[in-house]
This record gives sequence, structure tokens and C-alpha cells, in this order.
Amino acid sequence: MAQEEVQNGGAEKVAAVTFTAVKPQLTVEAPKAVDAVQFYKSAFGALEVGRTLHPKRKADQELPHILSAQLELAGSTILVSDIAENYTPVKAEGSGCVLCLETEDVEAAIAKAVSAGGVAEGEITEGDGACCGGRVGKVKDPYGYVWLICSPAKKCADVVA
Amino acid sequence: MAQEEVQNGGAEKVAAVTFTAVKPQLTVEAPKAVDAVQFYKSAFGALEVGRTLHPKRKADQELPHILSAQLELAGSTILVSDIAENYTPVKAEGSGCVLCLETEDVEAAIAKAVSAGGVAEGEITEGDGACCGGRVGKVKDPYGYVWLICSPAKKCADVVA
Repeated sequence: MAQEEVQNGGAEKVAAVTFTAVKPQLTVEAPKAVDAVQFYKSAFGALEVGRTLHPKRKADQELPHILSAQLELAGSTILVSDIAENYTPVKAEGSGCVLCLETEDVEAAIAKAVSAGGVAEGEITEGDGACCGGRVGKVKDPYGYVWLICSPAKKCADVVA
Repeated sequence: MAQEEVQNGGAEKVAAVTFTAVKPQLTVEAPKAVDAVQFYKSAFGALEVGRTLHPKRKADQELPHILSAQLELAGSTILVSDIAENYTPVKAEGSGCVLCLETEDVEAAIAKAVSAGGVAEGEITEGDGACCGGRVGKVKDPYGYVWLICSPAKKCADVVA
């Protein structure tokens, strides 16, 4: 592979983008996320460091809808999220595993990914996104994988289970 | 959630297992891995730090079969692998994204995951595994995700693209 290909591909005109984290997000059918978190603790020794619940589901439901549980595993972070039709702004299609890429500049990151051949899906949403709140956009790559481009997680520390 | 649940679930009798890394592995239909790697470089600024090719495909094929390309992205490692019927010891079913968990004790890790409710699939294989060689076993969790339990990657540094 030629050295110059390593640099930037076809995206020379797009601003540089820095990513601060990549986190696999495992989506499970609601309300199984609470069980899945327990399984990953038991099976792999994962440590839950944060949990973001759907605000409208906190009060009136016995089993809360988990927007995102943050698990530490082998020095990395994985996310586990309940998926349900009415409560899920960003849903994986085809694959239940989504990759969350955190960056301060969501728009520039999406633009760069699109210029490289990805397809932006939907609008950038704010608030109760799948990645611990903040701003979230979605890009599907040419190989079928969905990447959530999101602003860095900040709210998880509020809700530690 | 009760504090004692955090500890070990139902796996008290199983040896402690330490994981050294968790790496999402994105599988793509062969021979598209080479293109996918280029896309992740262009779109997200990923840096390729290693590539393991199928040894039998190096000599006689124009496009090598990529068992595993290691990409560094936002401080984490992701793997990109060609999937083809004849050359793939461990294939994702349902989801194209697999999670590789590295540990020195593959057997104990699989036993612990199984005691927690996972299902071991196939035998532990050695050599040209999906995670840069070494020993690889496979556990499907109750939520459909496939985890490759593998010995730490060592051979990637040999083949830098």
C-alpha cells in the first residue's frame, strides 16, 4: 500500500477531526439491558461505571429503559442499551452492535466520513441520545456498519447503579 | 441493584480471569477488508498498526485474505477481517461485529462465561485465528453477541502494511 494513501484518502478538503473514544454499543431488546449488564459482570468481570435511564421511564415503570449503561472491561468501555420502538432515537439495522465515536465536532466528523464514502442517516439529535446524552449523529459505512458520531459522554457519572 | 450482585453473579466457583483488551472486530465479505481499512483511515483517521494475512493466500492470490487488520482509533484498537467460507474459522452469525476479549487463560475465561449463561461454540483453535493468531475460542452470550476469547495478539507487529 502506498504511503500517501495512509494520510487522508479523498478527504483532503475536510477539516481535521479528533476522536476521543470509540465504544462498542451492544443493543438488546428492552427491557433486557439490565440482565445483559449483569451477565457481562458475571461472565467477564465488567464493572458498571454509569447508567443513563430514559427520563420518562424512570418514574412510572418498574423496569427502567436503559439508554446506556457504561461498562468498563479490559481497560475499554462498552455500552449496553435497551432498544424499543418508541424510545430509541438511533437504532442499529442489521447488526446489533454499533460503534460510538466521540468527538467535540460532530458535524465535521460526519462531513469527513461522508466525503470518504459513508452515508449520513437522519438528523443530529440532542439530549437523550444513545451515547450518554449529548449530540449524536449517525453514519453508515459502505460495509454496513453503523457509527454513532457523538459529543463526549458527560452525564453518565450522575446515575451510577 | 444490590452490591453483592456486582461481584460475581453465579460464577463464584470459577477461577478469576483477567482480560487485557477488548477489541471490536468488524467482519466484511472477502476481499473487501482492504477497502474497508482504507475507508476507516479516510473517514475516521484510523491508523493501521498491523495486518495478518492468511498464509495460504499470500502467494497465489492478487488480493490477500486479511485475517485481521489492526487499526488504532481514538486510543482503542479495532480489527477488520475478511470473511469467506473456506478461510474463516470463526464467523459472526447474525451480527457482523464480534468482540475479541484477550486473556492469558482462554479455557478459564470460557468456563466462567459459560457458568454465567453463555454458550461455548466450537473448539478452541490455534494458529490462524481471527485475532492475530494465537488460541481462540468462541462464546455466544444470551443476547446474541459473539465474543472471541483469545490469547493476546503477538504476531501483528510482524506484518505491518
